Amino acid sequence: MPISRRLGILAGASALVGARRAVADQAPPATPPWMQEQGAPVAKTSYGVPSPYERNVVRRQRLAVTFGGASNTGTPLQDLHGIITPNGLHYERHHAGVPAIDPEAHRLLIHGLVDRPLIFTMDDIMRFPSVSRIHFLECSGNTPEYHDTKPNWTPQDTHGLLSCCEWTGVLLSTLLAEVGAQQSARWILAEGADAAGLTRSIPIEKAWDDAIVAYAQNGERLRPEQGYPLRLLLPGFEGNMNIKWLRRLKLGDQPWETREETSKYTELLPDGKARQFNFVMDAKSVITRPAGGQQLRDPGFHEITGLAWSGRGRIQRVDVSTDGGTSWQAATLQEPVLPKCLTRFRLPWTWDGGPASLQSRAVDETGYVQPTREALIDVRGVNAYYHFNAVQTWRIAQGGAITNAV
Amino acid sequence: MPISRRLGILAGASALVGARRAVADQAPPATPPWMQEQGAPVAKTSYGVPSPYERNVVRRQRLAVTFGGASNTGTPLQDLHGIITPNGLHYERHHAGVPAIDPEAHRLLIHGLVDRPLIFTMDDIMRFPSVSRIHFLECSGNTPEYHDTKPNWTPQDTHGLLSCCEWTGVLLSTLLAEVGAQQSARWILAEGADAAGLTRSIPIEKAWDDAIVAYAQNGERLRPEQGYPLRLLLPGFEGNMNIKWLRRLKLGDQPWETREETSKYTELLPDGKARQFNFVMDAKSVITRPAGGQQLRDPGFHEITGLAWSGRGRIQRVDVSTDGGTSWQAATLQEPVLPKCLTRFRLPWTWDGGPASLQSRAVDETGYVQPTREALIDVRGVNAYYHFNAVQTWRIAQGGAITNAV
Repeated sequence: MPISRRLGILAGASALVGARRAVADQAPPATPPWMQEQGAPVAKTSYGVPSPYERNVVRRQRLAVTFGGASNTGTPLQDLHGIITPNGLHYERHHAGVPAIDPEAHRLLIHGLVDRPLIFTMDDIMRFPSVSRIHFLECSGNTPEYHDTKPNWTPQDTHGLLSCCEWTGVLLSTLLAEVGAQQSARWILAEGADAAGLTRSIPIEKAWDDAIVAYAQNGERLRPEQGYPLRLLLPGFEGNMNIKWLRRLKLGDQPWETREETSKYTELLPDGKARQFNFVMDAKSVITRPAGGQQLRDPGFHEITGLAWSGRGRIQRVDVSTDGGTSWQAATLQEPVLPKCLTRFRLPWTWDGGPASLQSRAVDETGYVQPTREALIDVRGVNAYYHFNAVQTWRIAQGGAITNAV
Repeated sequence: MPISRRLGILAGASALVGARRAVADQAPPATPPWMQEQGAPVAKTSYGVPSPYERNVVRRQRLAVTFGGASNTGTPLQDLHGIITPNGLHYERHHAGVPAIDPEAHRLLIHGLVDRPLIFTMDDIMRFPSVSRIHFLECSGNTPEYHDTKPNWTPQDTHGLLSCCEWTGVLLSTLLAEVGAQQSARWILAEGADAAGLTRSIPIEKAWDDAIVAYAQNGERLRPEQGYPLRLLLPGFEGNMNIKWLRRLKLGDQPWETREETSKYTELLPDGKARQFNFVMDAKSVITRPAGGQQLRDPGFHEITGLAWSGRGRIQRVDVSTDGGTSWQAATLQEPVLPKCLTRFRLPWTWDGGPASLQSRAVDETGYVQPTREALIDVRGVNAYYHFNAVQTWRIAQGGAITNAV
């Protein structure tokens, strides 16, 4: 960053705490009560939890449904920082609830067009060479704004089916070599061990590229709602294909046309055709602060920050507008920028206290530019449901109240 | 990785699951009970927890003490993967327990050799431009093996006061510009809001370099035992200087010679002199699997994996020995390799079922090579306590039992 711009930030920041100066000159802070007695001792063994003052930072169910097993909860993006999602706040989407699986009893079968059909225990899986990579996961039904939206929606409501972890496991290519995948194999059926027996057809190219059979997230073993003890991780592909509680991989020469790739997870286009096998999550971004549901209190310096991501690789650039798309400025991207991973962007901004419309627009390394809502609907129509990746607008009113503009 | 080596790994791996093949040919796995009923529904709001089957993966108190407030708990490194430590397993070291701080009432005072002494609320702090960076933290008393060690120690016992998170906050340099640090300021006193009022003197160069006043770890706000709502983060410096519950920064022209930098956190050298102000954690590494407390069951392929880190920058190379240091092989480093951050290393290995001695040796980008125990003690003697960073040896016995060799 050039020094002139850096000084610009600092000058902007200087204004913000001016009100506190007289206080500091006159009265040092009193010794708070928590310095006057010993704090809580450590336990002999422990697994830590957040401060009780953070009890509002939770996953939230987005849609009220009859049976909570076929529902989802969103990550509170507006409360988070950086790119890592803590495991306790990773979004959920289940088709038949969360099974309670004994890892000693769990098995993975790989069969079909292979030389050596094999059944693996978890111990077997964990003996193989491992990899760890930081990738985002996004539900294809994230941002259901083709035909439904509300002014009071927050980033958690509009974009919360999005999280990012460091995943560890075995490359699927390693396991395919182990079973001897046959030349004629073109597709892989992946099946989950939940009561939905969720199944999807995966193109075998993804297996040879970067697919992971994952058993850990952010260092520790998978959480139950993320597929404990084993899940498929297909970097950049829509969430539901990343089969949780993975129990079976079958190699075949064509897709299986399962329920979740025919009646569900397809797009009804304006011409009446269904768009099927929409694997890759296109480039997308959202400002998480300032954002819908928040209230700006003081004019002056505010950092605009948010997240950008692309299922096709690295984010190359994020442009931010504060005037509803009339003018744009390039945001700073948090390093390192990793492929198929959330990228945090930041832009210094001075709010004049008046109305503003905040937007972000991601560009990925393929040159793809995140579309406007109008451009997206022009192509996809309003019968579509999944893969809505249009530019999001947060409207700041005179006085600082922020709402979802669409 | 050259294809020949890759095939070598796969050939090694092939041996490991040979026993399962007949099973797979004859009997597909039965439908498990958890597929025969709906799983647990999602809650309206939630903060997730690990599977009950992982209840053994916890922080553990390393030393029994009279008052648990002046104690520590170690991270279960042997159970973790990748480089990120989940917040619930981040190691702890407290001098007077964990204070329960109301963030609304918390204040940070910056005073001394400054033009504008200021008191900041948490809201003030969070208005400034932010940064997020992945860094390790290590207690300088990690690995207390100058004069005490036990054969049954695990990585959690020997190296568990070590963790790694994505930290978010404001660069300390931003705040120093805000208060107008004076030219004569050479040192900063940092004070915590715990009952110990823990204070350390920080060289001001660190403030202008990469010090962060941090309010978040791995996306969410700091955990109470990591300094909620605010801590100092001095990348690469010994843990206790990264003052938790940060309430005061005073700029001065010399160090304050506080208790924690005179009677504590200094090294008594063989010549009777005390080595003071040992800020930087030198390059170090440890194999976390196979490691002490574990049991190898089957000869054949095993991945050797562990962690390396340096307070001086990036890890350049990690060498691994399976014969107690006679011969060495370069391990693969997990990308991206980040400065002052844990680096995961991995090496494929075929165990012949006999005795072996596993060692790892880190080299950082300054060219510093992690020393042997003998070389370290030759310089530091055995009255020292902190900054033990020698090569660790895990001894594998005939039959596969693994112990701490020193």
